[in-house]
Amino acid sequence: MYRTHTCGQLRASDAGKKVTLAGWVQRSRKLGGMTFIDLRDRYGITQLVVKADAPAELVETANSLGREFVIQATGEVVERESKNAKMDTGDIEIQLDSINILNKSVTPPFTIEDNSDGGEDLRAKYRYLDLRRNPLQRALKIRHNIAIEIRNYLDSQNFMEIETPYLIKSTPEGARDFVVPSRMNPGTFYALPQSPQTFKQLLMVAGYDRYFQIVRCFRDEDLRADRQPEFTQIDCEMSFVEQEDVLNTFEGMMRTLFKKIVNVDIPNPIPRMSWYDAMDKYGSDKPDIRFGMEIHDITAQTKGFGFSVFDSAEYIGSIAVPGAASYTRKELDQLTEWVKRPQVGAKGLVYIKLNEDGTVKSSVDKFYTPEQIQAIVAAAEAKKGDLVLILCGAKRKAQTMLGVLRIEMGNRLGYRDPKVFAPLWVVDFPLFEWDDETNRFYAMHHPFTAPKPEHLDWYYSDKKEDLERVCANAYDFVLNGTELGGGSIRIHEAAMQERMFEILGITKEEADYKFGFIINAFKFGAPPHGGLAFGFDRVCALFGGQETIRDYIAFPKNNQGRDVMIDAPSQIDQVQMDELFIQSTFKPEE
Amino acid sequence: MYRTHTCGQLRASDAGKKVTLAGWVQRSRKLGGMTFIDLRDRYGITQLVVKADAPAELVETANSLGREFVIQATGEVVERESKNAKMDTGDIEIQLDSINILNKSVTPPFTIEDNSDGGEDLRAKYRYLDLRRNPLQRALKIRHNIAIEIRNYLDSQNFMEIETPYLIKSTPEGARDFVVPSRMNPGTFYALPQSPQTFKQLLMVAGYDRYFQIVRCFRDEDLRADRQPEFTQIDCEMSFVEQEDVLNTFEGMMRTLFKKIVNVDIPNPIPRMSWYDAMDKYGSDKPDIRFGMEIHDITAQTKGFGFSVFDSAEYIGSIAVPGAASYTRKELDQLTEWVKRPQVGAKGLVYIKLNEDGTVKSSVDKFYTPEQIQAIVAAAEAKKGDLVLILCGAKRKAQTMLGVLRIEMGNRLGYRDPKVFAPLWVVDFPLFEWDDETNRFYAMHHPFTAPKPEHLDWYYSDKKEDLERVCANAYDFVLNGTELGGGSIRIHEAAMQERMFEILGITKEEADYKFGFIINAFKFGAPPHGGLAFGFDRVCALFGGQETIRDYIAFPKNNQGRDVMIDAPSQIDQVQMDELFIQSTFKPEE
Repeated sequence: MYRTHTCGQLRASDAGKKVTLAGWVQRSRKLGGMTFIDLRDRYGITQLVVKADAPAELVETANSLGREFVIQATGEVVERESKNAKMDTGDIEIQLDSINILNKSVTPPFTIEDNSDGGEDLRAKYRYLDLRRNPLQRALKIRHNIAIEIRNYLDSQNFMEIETPYLIKSTPEGARDFVVPSRMNPGTFYALPQSPQTFKQLLMVAGYDRYFQIVRCFRDEDLRADRQPEFTQIDCEMSFVEQEDVLNTFEGMMRTLFKKIVNVDIPNPIPRMSWYDAMDKYGSDKPDIRFGMEIHDITAQTKGFGFSVFDSAEYIGSIAVPGAASYTRKELDQLTEWVKRPQVGAKGLVYIKLNEDGTVKSSVDKFYTPEQIQAIVAAAEAKKGDLVLILCGAKRKAQTMLGVLRIEMGNRLGYRDPKVFAPLWVVDFPLFEWDDETNRFYAMHHPFTAPKPEHLDWYYSDKKEDLERVCANAYDFVLNGTELGGGSIRIHEAAMQERMFEILGITKEEADYKFGFIINAFKFGAPPHGGLAFGFDRVCALFGGQETIRDYIAFPKNNQGRDVMIDAPSQIDQVQMDELFIQSTFKPEE
Repeated sequence: MYRTHTCGQLRASDAGKKVTLAGWVQRSRKLGGMTFIDLRDRYGITQLVVKADAPAELVETANSLGREFVIQATGEVVERESKNAKMDTGDIEIQLDSINILNKSVTPPFTIEDNSDGGEDLRAKYRYLDLRRNPLQRALKIRHNIAIEIRNYLDSQNFMEIETPYLIKSTPEGARDFVVPSRMNPGTFYALPQSPQTFKQLLMVAGYDRYFQIVRCFRDEDLRADRQPEFTQIDCEMSFVEQEDVLNTFEGMMRTLFKKIVNVDIPNPIPRMSWYDAMDKYGSDKPDIRFGMEIHDITAQTKGFGFSVFDSAEYIGSIAVPGAASYTRKELDQLTEWVKRPQVGAKGLVYIKLNEDGTVKSSVDKFYTPEQIQAIVAAAEAKKGDLVLILCGAKRKAQTMLGVLRIEMGNRLGYRDPKVFAPLWVVDFPLFEWDDETNRFYAMHHPFTAPKPEHLDWYYSDKKEDLERVCANAYDFVLNGTELGGGSIRIHEAAMQERMFEILGITKEEADYKFGFIINAFKFGAPPHGGLAFGFDRVCALFGGQETIRDYIAFPKNNQGRDVMIDAPSQIDQVQMDELFIQSTFKPEE
């Protein structure tokens, strides 16, 4: 071993000990003949000192050290005269007898500090240097700790971690698969799993009762911001359970994580909200409930008074933004432009200012009497100083736009503190979505999701309006406006499954082709079962107080799906392609 | 929840409780008007009873149950009159009030018993049914338990589990990569990792100090027996360590596993053997030291006495097989045929029988005097009743054949009890192997493995015989004749690395092309580091007392790399190939 202690270990009580440390030179400076070196490893930073009267050779070596040199240093622990309370090792320093340069370093292309001077692209290329920075070390440490806690919790609940294969079969549905040509089976391909869904349901058929896996999944999608082509999932499934059992089990897991990782006691029980309430009040199926500013339906108070925009709208809704009555004309114009961007998609924005002096100013004054405006304000539950923002359109679409606006205003007002954690179960999703274009129902989750037991009459009804109100035995875990996970109770009875296919307009032949394998397995005694999956990268990021996942993945890909550090993907040899019986058809433009 | 207890939970102390169980019908039988049902889940089997005077409907339901039906059964726990000591729940049975059939089952194609009547292919196709059998449930449970213990041990030793990417870059060396065409980067391919070797070394450069990962690896090799195209590795790396530190750390891990998983105290310390001794005494770099029967060099006692086969051999070696002097002529002939098979590759087999009555009989009586035979027997360290088996040839080749023969005789004599665990570190591997054909040295492990510090003079010497005796700072963990893992201390100094390339005849250009990326990373302050990797599938199998890994993998591939359950790999759509800019060049023969 090159060291007796780590760089985060020594305290005043160690004074007098002879120690050897090893690590990287964070910085070194000369001060009145002495040389001070900050030595860094994963565990901390320790100050080393070479005194002015040290042997010349040692002084020379100390003064030759560059940033990021790797050294081994031996000396005596002494209590510092001027202590540094900000550092765990700030009470001591090491008076050196010797320095052994283990490795030199060329000058890194950016500073290895909490706030580096390197741009994103440069840091991505030298990811192994970026990973030396504290914020990333902390991110990966929290990831490690969360994984350990998850596994131990689930183990204590009789879950077994079972590894499922990565080389599986391409399925004709869903997102695009990554595929892998098989050399031993020419002309055929494996696919990389988008999730272990089929396998975990098979494990329930196989009697494993409680399964989990922290597992990599792959989706060949065009990458939106903060999506990765490979991502990690906490994948779980349980047998002989109802929805309540699944929610309780994973509420327990989350409670344990919050306590052990960030020492936070989350509400007990975690609040639950129906999908309908979430849409109506927050305009989102993943509401951020750290703040109110709820959406109100003000259709009754605004429609039919001669303002044609509202008169022709299905739905008119509002949010009341505290303290924003002071917005200037210019700020309101900017906000109007903001909601008109394609990402939001509103046609315009109506406002009512409730000034602190009791006066009211709105962009629709001429269409409503002061009394009518007061009625709107009352329906919007606004109070003095509030700015009421109003959008209209088709109900769910308008609510969604209001939801996006609400989050924006929440950000502007500082309501979205990453140190505050507001978990929520969203439940009672509609089982089906009707699509006007194709004139048929689609499964909102997937065609194996069970209806709620109390809605079975509607499920077996022939009426469209009955089917529309069937709720799914499905649930999402939402934290601070981000969906961290979700799942459902699965259908395990053949008759119920057949009915599902019937409603979705899937013929028996089509069902056999697409799902035959799992349907067949279910004939051999499938137990009632259900489960869920959490996005592990996102869980880690949120526990770390961040919204982006990239820093919580050691070696992420960029938005083009490239690893710029190792330069992948890349061209391969013709020999390799020949062996795999494939050929590239790509013709680069000349 | 469909149950109050599992099928493995109830004891005599629960008598009188009203309980509900859920599970699969293992078997049911009628006995004097009563119906007995064995209900099975992952946790055990509980006997259910429907009494003769139960309601007719209940009796009828009980009698309608087929094998593998999934039921929910409610009743009272009663202490049995005739207890079954073989079952954990054997003291009780449940007198039923009701049975709820949750799911029927068609008759499974084979019996779900410890010893199934299904053939291997049939069980592979219905893997989800095979997985219901006890031996497989136990196998996957032990795998889960080992993973939990490994993670907790390594966590306690400050290791961090860090996930490395699965979509990486194809490398021009080593075994064949599986590749993944990139849709977003047309004409290019990712590769699936054969191991995270590069990434774990980068994590050391990045200062993570102690890394591990239980990680899937992929190798597109022609599958030998008991190889899988995807397999799981316990991958580890440490900074600022010497070989001794790595061995101690993982000895600690193995000691913990043996104690916690199979309650065995392994020798402390685990014995170490040099590669040279392993080859000389056991004819293998992974000796099974559960038994002796060591190889002896009897060249001096056999060469030069006029027996031309021996006289022309570089090396003559023997093993003495206890009690096998009684082998008949026919048995000896069969053994001779056995060693002549291509898998062993001997040209013939010479024997000396030391009969219990003191007489000696050998196949080379006419070439040696009785005194010379006695000298051979003494050198072979044989005793009365032993059969001395002798092979000759080039030294290492003959030793290897003797090693294979030794294992075979060990099997025949029952010396290889899977409940006995004999771990061993094999150390001091040669750093280089000379190849006569290409007239150059090859790295025995890989070109980043460091020489032993005490052999540095030889390492920098120009003499072939010096280089041949340089030992690597490398080590293998061997258990019961199987290599479970191995690793090395890596080179971290530029000058030592350059010397390695020089010895291997790799030019600077070639080195840059093949390893440039990692060499470049090493310029930024690489710490001294080393590590190892264990084959997790094999670790699980050996702890479970098996030699084959297939039962320790939930969904393995067959020898053609196929998953016959899901029928993968399979053909994909032309549309999919077009999107990926690839085309299949395979033309099935007509």
